[in-house]
Amino acid sequence: MTQTLGIALMGTGRMAHVYGPKINAHPGLRLEVIYNPRISSAEKAAAQYGGRAMDDLDAVLSDPGVDAVIIATPTDTHVDYIERVARAGKPIYCEKPLDQTLERVEQAMTALKEHPVPFMLGFNRRFDPDNAALRNAVKTGEIGRLNMLMSWSREPAPPPIEYVRVSGGYFVDATIHDIDLLCWIAGERPVEVQAAGSCMFNEQIGAEGDFDMTMTTLKMPSGALVHINNSRACAYGFDQRLEAFGNDGMVQTLNHRDDNLVRWNNRRTAAREPLKHFFLERYDQSFYNALDEFHAAITEGRSPSATAQDGRAALAIALACARSAKEGRAVRPDSAFG
Amino acid sequence: MTQTLGIALMGTGRMAHVYGPKINAHPGLRLEVIYNPRISSAEKAAAQYGGRAMDDLDAVLSDPGVDAVIIATPTDTHVDYIERVARAGKPIYCEKPLDQTLERVEQAMTALKEHPVPFMLGFNRRFDPDNAALRNAVKTGEIGRLNMLMSWSREPAPPPIEYVRVSGGYFVDATIHDIDLLCWIAGERPVEVQAAGSCMFNEQIGAEGDFDMTMTTLKMPSGALVHINNSRACAYGFDQRLEAFGNDGMVQTLNHRDDNLVRWNNRRTAAREPLKHFFLERYDQSFYNALDEFHAAITEGRSPSATAQDGRAALAIALACARSAKEGRAVRPDSAFG
Amino acid sequence: MTQTLGIALMGTGRMAHVYGPKINAHPGLRLEVIYNPRISSAEKAAAQYGGRAMDDLDAVLSDPGVDAVIIATPTDTHVDYIERVARAGKPIYCEKPLDQTLERVEQAMTALKEHPVPFMLGFNRRFDPDNAALRNAVKTGEIGRLNMLMSWSREPAPPPIEYVRVSGGYFVDATIHDIDLLCWIAGERPVEVQAAGSCMFNEQIGAEGDFDMTMTTLKMPSGALVHINNSRACAYGFDQRLEAFGNDGMVQTLNHRDDNLVRWNNRRTAAREPLKHFFLERYDQSFYNALDEFHAAITEGRSPSATAQDGRAALAIALACARSAKEGRAVRPDSAFG
Amino acid sequence: MTQTLGIALMGTGRMAHVYGPKINAHPGLRLEVIYNPRISSAEKAAAQYGGRAMDDLDAVLSDPGVDAVIIATPTDTHVDYIERVARAGKPIYCEKPLDQTLERVEQAMTALKEHPVPFMLGFNRRFDPDNAALRNAVKTGEIGRLNMLMSWSREPAPPPIEYVRVSGGYFVDATIHDIDLLCWIAGERPVEVQAAGSCMFNEQIGAEGDFDMTMTTLKMPSGALVHINNSRACAYGFDQRLEAFGNDGMVQTLNHRDDNLVRWNNRRTAAREPLKHFFLERYDQSFYNALDEFHAAITEGRSPSATAQDGRAALAIALACARSAKEGRAVRPDSAFG
Repeated sequence: MTQTLGIALMGTGRMAHVYGPKINAHPGLRLEVIYNPRISSAEKAAAQYGGRAMDDLDAVLSDPGVDAVIIATPTDTHVDYIERVARAGKPIYCEKPLDQTLERVEQAMTALKEHPVPFMLGFNRRFDPDNAALRNAVKTGEIGRLNMLMSWSREPAPPPIEYVRVSGGYFVDATIHDIDLLCWIAGERPVEVQAAGSCMFNEQIGAEGDFDMTMTTLKMPSGALVHINNSRACAYGFDQRLEAFGNDGMVQTLNHRDDNLVRWNNRRTAAREPLKHFFLERYDQSFYNALDEFHAAITEGRSPSATAQDGRAALAIALACARSAKEGRAVRPDSAFG
Repeated sequence: MTQTLGIALMGTGRMAHVYGPKINAHPGLRLEVIYNPRISSAEKAAAQYGGRAMDDLDAVLSDPGVDAVIIATPTDTHVDYIERVARAGKPIYCEKPLDQTLERVEQAMTALKEHPVPFMLGFNRRFDPDNAALRNAVKTGEIGRLNMLMSWSREPAPPPIEYVRVSGGYFVDATIHDIDLLCWIAGERPVEVQAAGSCMFNEQIGAEGDFDMTMTTLKMPSGALVHINNSRACAYGFDQRLEAFGNDGMVQTLNHRDDNLVRWNNRRTAAREPLKHFFLERYDQSFYNALDEFHAAITEGRSPSATAQDGRAALAIALACARSAKEGRAVRPDSAFG
Repeated sequence: MTQTLGIALMGTGRMAHVYGPKINAHPGLRLEVIYNPRISSAEKAAAQYGGRAMDDLDAVLSDPGVDAVIIATPTDTHVDYIERVARAGKPIYCEKPLDQTLERVEQAMTALKEHPVPFMLGFNRRFDPDNAALRNAVKTGEIGRLNMLMSWSREPAPPPIEYVRVSGGYFVDATIHDIDLLCWIAGERPVEVQAAGSCMFNEQIGAEGDFDMTMTTLKMPSGALVHINNSRACAYGFDQRLEAFGNDGMVQTLNHRDDNLVRWNNRRTAAREPLKHFFLERYDQSFYNALDEFHAAITEGRSPSATAQDGRAALAIALACARSAKEGRAVRPDSAFG
Repeated sequence: MTQTLGIALMGTGRMAHVYGPKINAHPGLRLEVIYNPRISSAEKAAAQYGGRAMDDLDAVLSDPGVDAVIIATPTDTHVDYIERVARAGKPIYCEKPLDQTLERVEQAMTALKEHPVPFMLGFNRRFDPDNAALRNAVKTGEIGRLNMLMSWSREPAPPPIEYVRVSGGYFVDATIHDIDLLCWIAGERPVEVQAAGSCMFNEQIGAEGDFDMTMTTLKMPSGALVHINNSRACAYGFDQRLEAFGNDGMVQTLNHRDDNLVRWNNRRTAAREPLKHFFLERYDQSFYNALDEFHAAITEGRSPSATAQDGRAALAIALACARSAKEGRAVRPDSAFG
């Protein structure tokens, strides 16, 4: 029988609503507690997904039913919660990013070094079946030595300007996903980055000094070159593609659609269905798979994929990209790697 | 909260192993009993999927925890079990086919008339998301009036000759799926059928007077023409496609694959992954969805999709196809419709 | 250097306008004469494509510049012209069909037996590069033994009712193309045919006792089964596809399009361009290739592909299909094969 | 009737063998002279394609049958020949590039300013039907404002090292094609470029200080971002793709193949044919179309597409890319634009 872990879910925002149903669907996880300092929010979520509503973190962390904690609170609270949960000795699954600054990330890493609990960062795209299949094709040598990697991530529409203001900038908010995914596939991290950005969709974003469209090149130690293609808007939906080009061939992932029908209509075209709307729809399965990895790592006594170290590296690279785009020069992110 | 139904799963063969995990995965179903007249078989399955092992049918049918019954026993026992379960007043989900003969099917229908319990026949392909999406496109008028329907069903490899001998013939064993699916999509049943068959893959099948490759044409009352393409062998996997051609356009379903990667390899081709191996893999989701329909119909107090009447009609059409292929003439299956 | 043949093009109708430019484009053909009993029509065409306008057939056939004749006159004149040209000893390329009746076809064959000039029937679809590539894949054993062949031929819109009235019926007018192509690919001719038809697009066609939508099954001596899918209307353009299914795999041809772009638009679909409009656009290259085969056969002193025998066989099979659809039974076309 | 231009084809190397047959196939061009200072080479080519062999350039340029000149000689002779032909007042079609240095290019432009003959540079990819269709989709507003453009150009195998040594470097030799094509599609030229390169396929190329794999980003005045993806080797053939991403959608070109069959084989995959081998096969039509544009521009008395100015701009941008890749910084190519 599967070992069941009692989970304390911290937070009741958008990501908590992603994790709640997935905890319930997973045979090895049991939603024990939903925590929010505002008890009414916790109660509302508990009514929806089950579990006990709690607002006292010390009580949560000493609760005998709580075997592990999922942190799905606002980003700027992640590090503080990591410190407290690590001190209490509970395994942690933390929604990405760790934080928007390298200083705070270092603080979390120090806490995890002092209290070495199992820790997993929610880089969910690694757990998408197609992304994982592409990585597997690369790792098993199907395309020979990896020479080029490309990732497209174009979002259906720009977020509200309020979100943009606190997002840490486009590279730190969005490109960071591609960076983590591509470094994980390549098995190496860039020695140098070049990035260029424009503001094409929402002038307010440009007024904040941010971009809504970027192209990034990563130069890897092996000589492999990586292209990241990001846009805050996309007329045809959430465009998510990967392309890995090697000595012996190429593999690509395709976009996902709402259905698989091919339509030949009286406008005389062959058409496919709309793409999946956005990340909740496109990566739905990946969130479940990420929790499954968290469960498996804990019950097998091994370290989960997607570590705090991975989070720090991705942030350092994203910050280097932002500097490159701003200063018009190649930037080496290596100083940030431990 | 979802109303939970206690299920008695009858049978421990291949299909029981399909339904067991899906009952467990469904939030509205509870695997209460696994029944087999040989208690050791029931116990073995119960150890795997949960539920109580029982070998006394009367005890099962009077068990207060049993709200509904899933019949997944050998085909020639379906009618007897239907009679007994209907008499006990329990809703029935019966694996297809009802039986291989119209006489026995009539017997089941009489029992269901006398004891009108909710009854659903396991025509799972209706519940495949792509098949359902294609039907929906037809029903919503996306392609205008339906003129042609086509279905391909090519199996990866012929079944053992022992299976063929008791299968009722290729049309009754296999084409019947396409018949039910296509009549359900078209919303009508054929006035005339034409069929042709060959034996190309396994001479033993021919020696039994059966075919392993057939083409069937159904002529519908509306004038629509239907083509069914069946083969007992297929080098490239389990080929399952639909094409609906109407006044205003066409819709097609595509085959499913083990992954969605596109591969460009050093044999210099662009290739896709293998197809899903066979029906358990390709139609995995459909079995879950069929149980969901069963649950929904019972809890909503309505009749399930895929009735005994549908089963009788599909069988009558399949028998007409077999006669057409044998006698080299168009056959009208209408006498079998009530 | 290529040997140049002086061509007399007989006829100035639609097909003559297809052949005129292709004769000019072919380095081995020289448009020497355009013949029409109405000299004004011949002169008009000659002004467009070059060559001398003539209205005296004897003069044409004794003209020293005329090495070969292309008959592109109305169908009911084909046999008479074949007799006269054959008697004059000139090689003949005759637009299909030979005639709509087996009797007249026999008459042409008798003439060709008495005056055995090189003769080619314009079954142009054999010369389409994709169709030829599919046949080549079959012939080279790429898919193992051929088990099934399928052909779709759906026309963009029904022809005028006047055309339908003199067309010889849908099977003789249209299905005959698929019949010739598929028998040529399979390398055998059917022992039995089954056909079904409806009238769905134009009631006037039905009032003439004809069909505008048919499904045909051919049963081959090897056991292979053949499906032909015909429609007089198609909302999304001229749908032309082939599928060959063998022991070791399947090959398919795709529809051709006006361009090869993939379009992802703000209706959020991935769309392809319109199909080629109709046969002049879709099979443009095949007409050139057919003339090239005619030229090559003559200059190499061998018999051209697509013989009068092929034309007689295709007609006999088409007539058998028409009878099958009318009488609701399988029909053996074998009596027509010499 | 089409006006026929007598052509002097200068050179007898690889590109002359491309243009020879295309001149012959074009109804408006007549291969009058083949020129090579070594008369034996000219005679050999003339025996193959027709025309008079000549080794005296002055005689060629004063020949009354010569209406226009195609320069297909080695790159380092282009400018000298342009000067002489321009002085003789003949229209010039010059194979790309003009030269590998901006100084020499300026020299040619000065000559063309003094002797303003019609001049066309052989940027043949503009004349590929798919590339032209994509540009047309952009120009007609089908995807709204253009935001991103991407081009892949991966060659099947590295050229001989001797070729690399005199090629002017990868950016000048190869990327220049993408640069011209993309600027032509975008209707603007970059204000800044960033490039990165590696040597992954042939160490000798690296030893020459050159790259065999590059990624380039162009930043356009409008804010549009452009990615160019180049590789000297590609296991699956000559990979040529474009992607244009706009406010209202995206258009892509697909690779071309040797045939259009879809193959489903007993390795259980759906595969497509090999790609076209290399540029002669892939862009075969474009060379014809380029000559057609040259002919049309001269007979219509207008300036041809693809001017000397375009050639200078593409070279300046390519040189800026090379500097960017070497110095690890964004480079502004603007100083080179007149």
